[in-house]
Amino acid sequence: MRLRGRKGIRENLEQQEDLVVLDPGQYRGKWAELFGNDLPIHVEFGMGKGQFISQMSYKHRDVNFIGVDMYDELIRRASEKGRGVWASEGVDTPPNLKLALLNIENVEQAFAPGEIERIYLNFSDPWPKSRHARRRLTHPRFLDKYKAILNDRGQIHFKTDSVTLFEFSLNAFADYGLQMTNISLDLHRDGLNEEHVMTEYETKFVGQGMKIHRCEVLIGEAALESYRPNRLEKYGK
Amino acid sequence: MRLRGRKGIRENLEQQEDLVVLDPGQYRGKWAELFGNDLPIHVEFGMGKGQFISQMSYKHRDVNFIGVDMYDELIRRASEKGRGVWASEGVDTPPNLKLALLNIENVEQAFAPGEIERIYLNFSDPWPKSRHARRRLTHPRFLDKYKAILNDRGQIHFKTDSVTLFEFSLNAFADYGLQMTNISLDLHRDGLNEEHVMTEYETKFVGQGMKIHRCEVLIGEAALESYRPNRLEKYGK
Repeated sequence: MRLRGRKGIRENLEQQEDLVVLDPGQYRGKWAELFGNDLPIHVEFGMGKGQFISQMSYKHRDVNFIGVDMYDELIRRASEKGRGVWASEGVDTPPNLKLALLNIENVEQAFAPGEIERIYLNFSDPWPKSRHARRRLTHPRFLDKYKAILNDRGQIHFKTDSVTLFEFSLNAFADYGLQMTNISLDLHRDGLNEEHVMTEYETKFVGQGMKIHRCEVLIGEAALESYRPNRLEKYGK
Repeated sequence: MRLRGRKGIRENLEQQEDLVVLDPGQYRGKWAELFGNDLPIHVEFGMGKGQFISQMSYKHRDVNFIGVDMYDELIRRASEKGRGVWASEGVDTPPNLKLALLNIENVEQAFAPGEIERIYLNFSDPWPKSRHARRRLTHPRFLDKYKAILNDRGQIHFKTDSVTLFEFSLNAFADYGLQMTNISLDLHRDGLNEEHVMTEYETKFVGQGMKIHRCEVLIGEAALESYRPNRLEKYGK
């Protein structure tokens, strides 16, 4: 891979208006318009090189995906990945995928209340020092932000290899009063599930025998309503 | 240790009326009377050889403790442990400790509604096969029973070395709609806390570098009320 200067990368991104959104604030409340349909919108906060969001967009055509990261270089790499995944279909512009340059501190400037249906947090920076706890993407101050942009069916799907980040997050979700479900302390215990889309990190970590932790958090009232009646069914009598 | 016949053990237990309760059903609704005071009652379901409940009774004189197990031989060993721990004070009968022979399936026959303030589940049998899931002491059918006997300040304190039992239990608590707090995926990560009373298993497992998982579950309305106002305080602004 050729290393490019900051300016070169920015020019590259500016030429990808069909896929890359450099100023997501201008689409606040208008993402459905940008996608040209009313399909639910799932975002990945901290998409890194974009393997997960690209494959998700390819596998789930009934969902619009937005990959968010704050570095030009990651947006550029994700744009290559996104186009690459769709190239097998002869498609140059993935129809249900956008890559947005955004600091997650500012998500409320880019998304209107209720505009998002699902947030993916995959292998977020664990920020292991306790004085950096407020930077962790599952800190209650971020949960405030997520709650503000999620819709009635809103969920957070979170996975990480970090035991300490997972522990912190379980406590944050519980203390925040959120409903968790499908908690896993070893996602791939029973072998790889072909349906399960992996991130770059995950592919590497699982190959090393590391354990992936995962859980889902139900935020929207409709999400809770469809969960509640059957929540104990799987335990039997 | 001399191995004794079943009959010899039962005779031994019958001679320990000051400490051992062979027919706990007779004290249903009358445990305060048996202890001779109104201190809160904490029970350990599956106390094994009794190290934890004995040390807890010695350290916390303002609580009455009941260690429960279903095997005569464990009750006998726990009785030796309980008396042993208190012997240093020249006390033969631990004043705030009883050991009850009881199958946890039948806890409602031994305890009246609201009679118990805290349940300890320490290193319960993980019953790893899924067809045995309903035997796990954190299965929702047991949570029904615990809820029935806990009082307004009722809590469950659960710890285990088993990742699969912990994962099952987190899901069971969450799906049951219970408030969890102080979730730990490695209780002794920051070294041993002298305040922390360990079980026999725990001493052994920690010595082997194994991780102990722990969480608290708040059941009673008063327990929830004292938790809710400050639940996010520890996260700062």
